[in-house]
Amino acid sequence: MPSISNKAIAMPASPIRRLVPYAEAAKNAGKTVYHLNIGQPDIETPANVLEKMKNLDLKVVEYSHSAGFQSYREGLANYYKKAVGVNLDPNDEIMVTTGGSEALVFAFQTCLEPGDEIIIPEPFYANYNGFAKTSNINVVPVTAKIENGFALPPIEEFRKKITPKTKGILICNPGNPTGYLYTKEELETLKEVVLEHDLFLFADEVYREFCYEGAVHTSALTLTGLEDNVILVDSVSKRYSMCGARVGALVSKNKEVMASALKFGQARLSPPTFGQIAGEEALNTPQSYFDHVVEEYVERRDILVDGLNQIEGVVCPKPQGAFYAIAKLPIDDADKFCQWLLEDFEYENQTVMMAPATGFYSTPGLGKQEVRLAYVLNKEALKNAVKCLEEALKVYPGRSYN
Amino acid sequence: MPSISNKAIAMPASPIRRLVPYAEAAKNAGKTVYHLNIGQPDIETPANVLEKMKNLDLKVVEYSHSAGFQSYREGLANYYKKAVGVNLDPNDEIMVTTGGSEALVFAFQTCLEPGDEIIIPEPFYANYNGFAKTSNINVVPVTAKIENGFALPPIEEFRKKITPKTKGILICNPGNPTGYLYTKEELETLKEVVLEHDLFLFADEVYREFCYEGAVHTSALTLTGLEDNVILVDSVSKRYSMCGARVGALVSKNKEVMASALKFGQARLSPPTFGQIAGEEALNTPQSYFDHVVEEYVERRDILVDGLNQIEGVVCPKPQGAFYAIAKLPIDDADKFCQWLLEDFEYENQTVMMAPATGFYSTPGLGKQEVRLAYVLNKEALKNAVKCLEEALKVYPGRSYN
Ligand SMILES: Cc1ncc(COP(=O)(O)O)c(C=O)c1O
Ligand SMILES: Cc1ncc(COP(=O)(O)O)c(C=O)c1O
Repeated sequence: MPSISNKAIAMPASPIRRLVPYAEAAKNAGKTVYHLNIGQPDIETPANVLEKMKNLDLKVVEYSHSAGFQSYREGLANYYKKAVGVNLDPNDEIMVTTGGSEALVFAFQTCLEPGDEIIIPEPFYANYNGFAKTSNINVVPVTAKIENGFALPPIEEFRKKITPKTKGILICNPGNPTGYLYTKEELETLKEVVLEHDLFLFADEVYREFCYEGAVHTSALTLTGLEDNVILVDSVSKRYSMCGARVGALVSKNKEVMASALKFGQARLSPPTFGQIAGEEALNTPQSYFDHVVEEYVERRDILVDGLNQIEGVVCPKPQGAFYAIAKLPIDDADKFCQWLLEDFEYENQTVMMAPATGFYSTPGLGKQEVRLAYVLNKEALKNAVKCLEEALKVYPGRSYN
Repeated sequence: MPSISNKAIAMPASPIRRLVPYAEAAKNAGKTVYHLNIGQPDIETPANVLEKMKNLDLKVVEYSHSAGFQSYREGLANYYKKAVGVNLDPNDEIMVTTGGSEALVFAFQTCLEPGDEIIIPEPFYANYNGFAKTSNINVVPVTAKIENGFALPPIEEFRKKITPKTKGILICNPGNPTGYLYTKEELETLKEVVLEHDLFLFADEVYREFCYEGAVHTSALTLTGLEDNVILVDSVSKRYSMCGARVGALVSKNKEVMASALKFGQARLSPPTFGQIAGEEALNTPQSYFDHVVEEYVERRDILVDGLNQIEGVVCPKPQGAFYAIAKLPIDDADKFCQWLLEDFEYENQTVMMAPATGFYSTPGLGKQEVRLAYVLNKEALKNAVKCLEEALKVYPGRSYN
């Protein structure tokens, strides 16, 4: 039997995968499991999008252009003009991808040599590890601290990590898993170090629309003087709650990067046609949809985060964006705790599934007392989940105050 | 300005990309251009699929399981049982992918180390080069000859190419660009060398349903004793003429490969939800649809291939499968000829776009007098295209009889 590659062996599994069988067992045992572990919102896809899909009059479901339908790219150029205030050429500065996921892979493949290093503030979206492995590049973490609400680490920390192999910095803004929204000032300090060392700045802004209480999002695209360095990763998944469309975008003013990325795009032929039709229609979604969604998330966040902070020993910074929060719990080991919640605990026949935060840190040992919670459930469910956690922490055998 | 990777620089562009501006110019000049250059069929997607999409009652377009919807995988297991006669476990032997394209990338990433070699009979589907580059592996060609109708090269040719780095053989059956359908005997000789050297056999069978005049397709999945070696790449793109769905599959009895491939699948979250719904419905397509399609393609093939062979100096083996043919033309250079057709030629205001075959050969210099033609247009258009070619060859300045 031929052996698989070392890369395949080293490829990280999803951080919550280990817990899935326990969640299934809990469900089979009749427990209600509140899934705070994944970024799949329950928010409805905009009605105009669903309506559009019902009125398709395709005869042949054809490939699109490898960079996506021209009309959709033009629509996206309008979107960026309005949402970000930047003019983009739909012909060679925007490429439609199969989710933000594919945009990340194309960005890495285009910009980084095998063995190159990319600096990422941790905790970070765990799949960056997988995409780095796929592209044979190395992730170098700079640690953001829960005490600072996961603000950008001091720029000196970045400078310390720069080697001749460093080719880029990757930020997620607002952040998964932290919910942290970078200020314009933070981005300006990043700009300095990016220019100093002529790096790429990969900006994952798939949660751009999820900014709360008037907090303003600064897109990396607006950083003047950084036009050739910024590679934007975007997605319709969260913006319009249509994760299954598998449509995203790679955006850059660096035409060399875009032309090269297109070669990877041509090899895989085209992004999904149905998803692009949905994505193009989604550009017509009324502002009221977003207002409603943001309002809903603020309420959910407050229920979850305020609720958690009222539990003795729990620390949970209040995020200004996205729909995740990281909480530090008075426990020995989040991995054990999350398993125990599913396997051994119930409160009125309910329990909670969360993602242990270790999977979001690259530095071994960090995040052991932390969990990530996605507030993608309705308010009632979130209240119940908080209550469950409160009760669980009272009786968890591995409770610890360190 | 930071520099892009050497990999991105070396990434091959699509072989017809260079010709696209000439085709556009021809169209703008008012010429009718018959596009025989791409594998985008004009055949309608099955009516039941289009109907299904109109009756969607989704509220949230969610991610699916990373291996695809369970119900769809079960449907695919039934399909393989009927179409191929093989029992597959929908839980760990079938993974739904974003087109056959993604299945190829996952197969390479899972099975091959950077620097490993894969032997492919040439001419082959040009994007294998791109996927190999993406995965940092090397393609080693074994040349199939037009004189033999592109039959499998003698197995000794494969043996000669095997080195300690050889990790697999990739075949496409029936073939793009040749249309050649491998016999059971040919596959059995491949099996020998695969077992001798404990290789993977990657079998791209995306054209499985396109076999003509009673010719029988032998799936690599049916080769006994090769269960751990065979990695099948499949797709709904051509089978149901829904290339834009971006749904394919990776299939293997090798559970280690499948479990590892799933890690790459988890990183990118899920294959397209709309496309999977379409794919699942497509499993209910009545046999009459396929009968009609095959009948249509046989007629088209006969018009194209018989027509070409009647032109003086043209040799075009009659393929038994897929919807491509390679023709050898009495010309100096197919690349020049294809450009000339678009730029300088017209017959009754019509011309033809074809793919120069050099892009399908890995050995430099091969295929210089050959073109690939896809018979994806209606019969009238094909007749006109053949006539155009006949007239063009009469006046092409680079005509040659070598
Ligand atoms: C930070 C971040 N980036 C990228 C993605 C990829 O999403 P998609 O491929 O659905 O666009 C996700 C999904 O959860 C994410 O959280
Ligand atoms: C031989 C072969 N394999 C794979 C593919 C990939 O197709 P898709 O990604 O649409 O499934 C194609 C498309 O033309 C092909 O011709």
